[in-house]
Amino acid sequence: MKIAGRHYRTIWLKEPEPSASASSFKYTVQIINQLKLPFEFEILDLHNVDDVCKAIKDMFVRGAGLIGAAAGFGMYLAALESDNEAFYKNMNLAALELKKTRPTASNLAWAVDRMMSMLQSAKALGLDKKREIARQEAQAIADEDALYCKNIGLHGLEVIRNIAQKKTGEPVHILTHCNAGWLAFVDHGSALSPVYAAFDSGINVHVWVDETRPRNQGASLTAWELAQHGVSHDLITDNAGGHLMQHGLVDLVITGADRVTRRGDAANKIGTYLKALAAKENNVPFYVALPSSTFDFSMLDGLKEIPIEERDASEVRFISGKTINNIIETVQICPDKTGARNWGFDVTPAYLISGLITERGICCANEKEILSLFPEFSNGGHI
Amino acid sequence: MKIAGRHYRTIWLKEPEPSASASSFKYTVQIINQLKLPFEFEILDLHNVDDVCKAIKDMFVRGAGLIGAAAGFGMYLAALESDNEAFYKNMNLAALELKKTRPTASNLAWAVDRMMSMLQSAKALGLDKKREIARQEAQAIADEDALYCKNIGLHGLEVIRNIAQKKTGEPVHILTHCNAGWLAFVDHGSALSPVYAAFDSGINVHVWVDETRPRNQGASLTAWELAQHGVSHDLITDNAGGHLMQHGLVDLVITGADRVTRRGDAANKIGTYLKALAAKENNVPFYVALPSSTFDFSMLDGLKEIPIEERDASEVRFISGKTINNIIETVQICPDKTGARNWGFDVTPAYLISGLITERGICCANEKEILSLFPEFSNGGHI
Repeated sequence: MKIAGRHYRTIWLKEPEPSASASSFKYTVQIINQLKLPFEFEILDLHNVDDVCKAIKDMFVRGAGLIGAAAGFGMYLAALESDNEAFYKNMNLAALELKKTRPTASNLAWAVDRMMSMLQSAKALGLDKKREIARQEAQAIADEDALYCKNIGLHGLEVIRNIAQKKTGEPVHILTHCNAGWLAFVDHGSALSPVYAAFDSGINVHVWVDETRPRNQGASLTAWELAQHGVSHDLITDNAGGHLMQHGLVDLVITGADRVTRRGDAANKIGTYLKALAAKENNVPFYVALPSSTFDFSMLDGLKEIPIEERDASEVRFISGKTINNIIETVQICPDKTGARNWGFDVTPAYLISGLITERGICCANEKEILSLFPEFSNGGHI
Repeated sequence: MKIAGRHYRTIWLKEPEPSASASSFKYTVQIINQLKLPFEFEILDLHNVDDVCKAIKDMFVRGAGLIGAAAGFGMYLAALESDNEAFYKNMNLAALELKKTRPTASNLAWAVDRMMSMLQSAKALGLDKKREIARQEAQAIADEDALYCKNIGLHGLEVIRNIAQKKTGEPVHILTHCNAGWLAFVDHGSALSPVYAAFDSGINVHVWVDETRPRNQGASLTAWELAQHGVSHDLITDNAGGHLMQHGLVDLVITGADRVTRRGDAANKIGTYLKALAAKENNVPFYVALPSSTFDFSMLDGLKEIPIEERDASEVRFISGKTINNIIETVQICPDKTGARNWGFDVTPAYLISGLITERGICCANEKEILSLFPEFSNGGHI
């Protein structure tokens, strides 16, 4: 995606200085610091796996696909930190540390396991070869994420086009929750990829942006990236979507997902479930867009099986933003002694979901249809 | 209710100075400035109807019952400003100005009309008598509001007691949205009155407090007044309620209402509808508590007929709170150019409501049951 005319991904490898010797040929990982958006555009260097763990845990990077890509690059940086003797011991430790950072995100464990699996097959090779394999696999994870998201856009475009044909030029109103745009992936996004594809095809689209408390990823990230692309949008509170749907002001809901079970139950940012209920009640199509890396075929019942991260109460008690003097400030919104609880995700049961938009196409949210798109996983496990 | 051990209402008449002459015997209206809560407890004087209009419009006072009481006192202040000749012309103007301040609140028009109706019967009387009648009627509106809310508490207590009996000492978890506590009325509150009654009866209650964006009345007012009373509670985002209900962590939802139609459709703070949907889906009882002044018997279909106030976009784009240096600061949470929309209320259809808790008892949310409690309004109109 372009920022002020220049193409960016959300994470990439920076080549070593030309002066580096062959044996210390180490890439650095660079990310867009999403904690500074929308008020500042900052690029950060991540030098080792601890940096990556911190970046994921403290949400410098966030979003299903981007967490997966960051984990892949984190494993690469761990490989750079390991000698050959303790290589697999160190890599296992790195894998554990990375997996602990965000419990709900499916892509995280998927990417770590994929890196480990690839490295297991390189046991006979020397250290430099192992590192090169790690780099290539991490890059492949990132590249696939971008490609899959692009394809999600092309499939989702057809859903929007069908609605647009009935609206004879009136805008297609799409509601989204949290940020499942290109900032949540390596590029393109999941939920917003069809929106960008529709906009680029000349379809009149307008997005209702849920602010998405407590961390306001809608207000700070979705609004920002839609504006960068020129897509019409309005910010709303998380409370507003039901009223909009009751009054025919939403044609389509598209959200992302952090983990989707083999029968189609979808964990996504807390509050998604409430929008799915309102969509069902008001006959508004409700789609979940995800690359296959977000499926967890080992799980069936999302409500019972998907672990839901509980985050710090301070995220509810405090809000950050920009003062009139252009200073980033944090304010407390409740009395000093008020306690708070802060679950990060909820699970939308499959029966509330009109369809899943994947890189291979769109299917209903049930086991049979999902497995017909992804038959290689009929025996469970991650994709 | 007590604040730091001293009893307060949210609005009251302050007696004139003893030195005042009989002909200038004018009360002042005093209110708790709710814009300053929870960080500062400030009492404000309102000297004339313009002050009252501003206090309602800018939400120094808010909440169904309190808006009604303020409107009543506003009409009294207008009577103090009128001479005898232009009395009814001035009162009609004041009535119009007051009614314009908040379009959704039923109690507002109800209180204004009640004041006008009482004054119409005083045409033959002198100015001082008219003013005295206005004062008495405004005070009666306020006193009735407090009494009715107290009775709502006693009826609602039985709902909580029934649940408590099944929980054998475990806390009864009650979710509420916005603030329908004593701060929203003259005293006691609607949704929170049963909670206080249960707490005072020794029932173990715990309240989930929706923060209630955009104005955060839950975080700033409900959390504050529950703490003053010693009731256990936790602040949550508006997004969290569905997840809590899916996991059996809510035993009961009670909200207030700003206008309820004769068939039981209830307009309340935006986001209430989403909680009602989640309650229905998860078999959680969903009650709406209201004094009869909140009914609008002239309306049947809430979704089509109740006017929904749209407020300024700045309420969504900015949030105020206290900095670490104890300064009240406003921060912007989205990019500079992001637009926002801001509807203040949504309508929960009657079929999602388990029951209406009124000062006369509890009834199902349908026309027959409502009119059996309030038979005098079988012909429509306000109570």
